[in-house]
Amino acid sequence: MPRTAETASFKFNHTMLRIKDPKPSLHFYTEILGMTLVEKKEYDSFTLYFLCFDHGDNVTAETRFGREGILELTHNHGTESDPDFKGYASGNSEPGRGFGHIALTVDDVDKACERFESLGVKFQKRPTDGKMRRIAFILDPDGYWVEILKGYFPS
Amino acid sequence: MPRTAETASFKFNHTMLRIKDPKPSLHFYTEILGMTLVEKKEYDSFTLYFLCFDHGDNVTAETRFGREGILELTHNHGTESDPDFKGYASGNSEPGRGFGHIALTVDDVDKACERFESLGVKFQKRPTDGKMRRIAFILDPDGYWVEILKGYFPS
Repeated sequence: MPRTAETASFKFNHTMLRIKDPKPSLHFYTEILGMTLVEKKEYDSFTLYFLCFDHGDNVTAETRFGREGILELTHNHGTESDPDFKGYASGNSEPGRGFGHIALTVDDVDKACERFESLGVKFQKRPTDGKMRRIAFILDPDGYWVEILKGYFPS
Repeated sequence: MPRTAETASFKFNHTMLRIKDPKPSLHFYTEILGMTLVEKKEYDSFTLYFLCFDHGDNVTAETRFGREGILELTHNHGTESDPDFKGYASGNSEPGRGFGHIALTVDDVDKACERFESLGVKFQKRPTDGKMRRIAFILDPDGYWVEILKGYFPS
């Protein structure tokens, strides 16, 4: 149940990450992770990309405000070709530590990771690395960590 | 529809943020924002808190893996009382710029913000500030930006 009547309508709609270059990022989030690009909003100096996993609800630019699990990618124009742009901090190293990661649940972590491997995705932690054998961390094109863990699939 | 058969099971399960002190953070995310604390996992050197907006689905420690919109807060023990701890980068200033924000949809932005104001929440941007009158940004105890925007409420 919602905790309070005043917050009963609240939803955790989206998470926003800045990206250097939309080409590799959109490839990563759509072709590799399987998200759908729901809306692209172009402004003078930046472009926003809204993505989510569409599980048959056919999310649109309007209905994306009615659900959770949206990813917003912000591209500040020019970073993709600026030799002085140093890249964005992933949040997992100093300085800038703070933001941790986004996480995907999947039905089969090993199978998902084999596919990521075959697609040339970089790993921060393979399922076989370290103690936690049931999870993995892959890296998106900007170096943000994407956790891969098993979801809950009631029989 | 899912983009590929191989990724059809994937869900954007959670976003993780590091927090300095769980007391003000849990107060903020539960009492002020209205999230439910679904699970607390204590380890030797850190504790994880998993929260979400419960819209009547009575999320549990098990079923939290089956949905989107989970927020994971990581507390590395000791930061709350360490005078040398400088706090985490919110991602929205140099150095560390990269992570942007998390966002909540609400049915009434002005009403939600009046309540936040009365609860002493700090604002990065009130609805009346700047050009974008329909959105606000509040700050969580670590300084992470939380966007407040109107959701999609079909009649």
